[in-house]
Amino acid sequence: MIAPLEDAIRELKRLPGIGQKSAERLIFHLLTREDEEVERLSSALADLSKKVRRCEVCGNFSTADKCNVCSNPQRDRSKICVVSRPWDITKIESTHKYDGLYHVLGGLINPIEDMSPSDLSIDKLLKRVKNEEVTEIILALEPKTEGESTSMFLVKKLRPLNVDISQIAQGVPVGRDLEFTDKATLGKAFEGRRSINS
Amino acid sequence: MIAPLEDAIRELKRLPGIGQKSAERLIFHLLTREDEEVERLSSALADLSKKVRRCEVCGNFSTADKCNVCSNPQRDRSKICVVSRPWDITKIESTHKYDGLYHVLGGLINPIEDMSPSDLSIDKLLKRVKNEEVTEIILALEPKTEGESTSMFLVKKLRPLNVDISQIAQGVPVGRDLEFTDKATLGKAFEGRRSINS
Repeated sequence: MIAPLEDAIRELKRLPGIGQKSAERLIFHLLTREDEEVERLSSALADLSKKVRRCEVCGNFSTADKCNVCSNPQRDRSKICVVSRPWDITKIESTHKYDGLYHVLGGLINPIEDMSPSDLSIDKLLKRVKNEEVTEIILALEPKTEGESTSMFLVKKLRPLNVDISQIAQGVPVGRDLEFTDKATLGKAFEGRRSINS
Repeated sequence: MIAPLEDAIRELKRLPGIGQKSAERLIFHLLTREDEEVERLSSALADLSKKVRRCEVCGNFSTADKCNVCSNPQRDRSKICVVSRPWDITKIESTHKYDGLYHVLGGLINPIEDMSPSDLSIDKLLKRVKNEEVTEIILALEPKTEGESTSMFLVKKLRPLNVDISQIAQGVPVGRDLEFTDKATLGKAFEGRRSINS
């Protein structure tokens, strides 16, 4: 195989879920497309490392020093939603249900993977709570063991700062049959049941 | 979502088999990688349109006027294997079972998709057979209706040129259980059976 094909296949295979066969299929597809289309893909990917950086305040993806959320005067500065990774913000923003600020921890406490509290952006969060006009912290960490223990750790650190702390609801996913919902989720859905009498 | 992420997702979604979710997953993966790795992927893809062209003799992928096969003095110039697409050559070369030359038709005769013989590189093939030292043509077109009718068309055109014409064998794929082999393939395997008494 000629070098440019080998190079492209090797680089594509580094991506998750792309093996030799899918890499070949992608390359062969690209070779049948207009040069302009291949050029657009290649420069869009290059821009990911060139243009995307992290917001210096909250850690969100951004093209400027401050992200779209932090620099938006319409956002409610009294609330900070804590997430583990920046793309959780993208997901939450797509719901249009939240108008506050964010804080990206950069991971979860996980002794097995050697992630300790000091590896996360926790001190920075505490500083924001102390120095800014924050009255509510909403924890939106993954509903799994590491997320739970990170949330517990944060609650312990945040409690002395006199701020409301909440956690996003866990329960049955919308549109999902109960039959296909796992036991743990169904249990959480019962624990978190809400009265509809009012 | 910020523009560079949207751009990258939009371009990735043009690729076969990549939807919104897989595009997001790929982007988020790339955002966690070193800049250098993203840069290597992006420039490998850019090189596909910049560096890869077609061999002026046979139509194979090439980085020069003539491809690796056509410019290799070790290849047997008396044989030309006819394929529909250049990546079929990549596949055949990987078997190391063929030492002749190639000719890429650029498709198959397909009235439904408005592909007629004049859209394919057939005249060029006939010219090569007439002007070069060719004694055998091996047809390696896809074993489906369009491949069969294109092969038949080529046989009619090639017969007057006094050249041996053969077709690659069809039969049960190596390592495949008979149980999972389709009827048509199994039928071809019987038709093409070879004596093992000798």
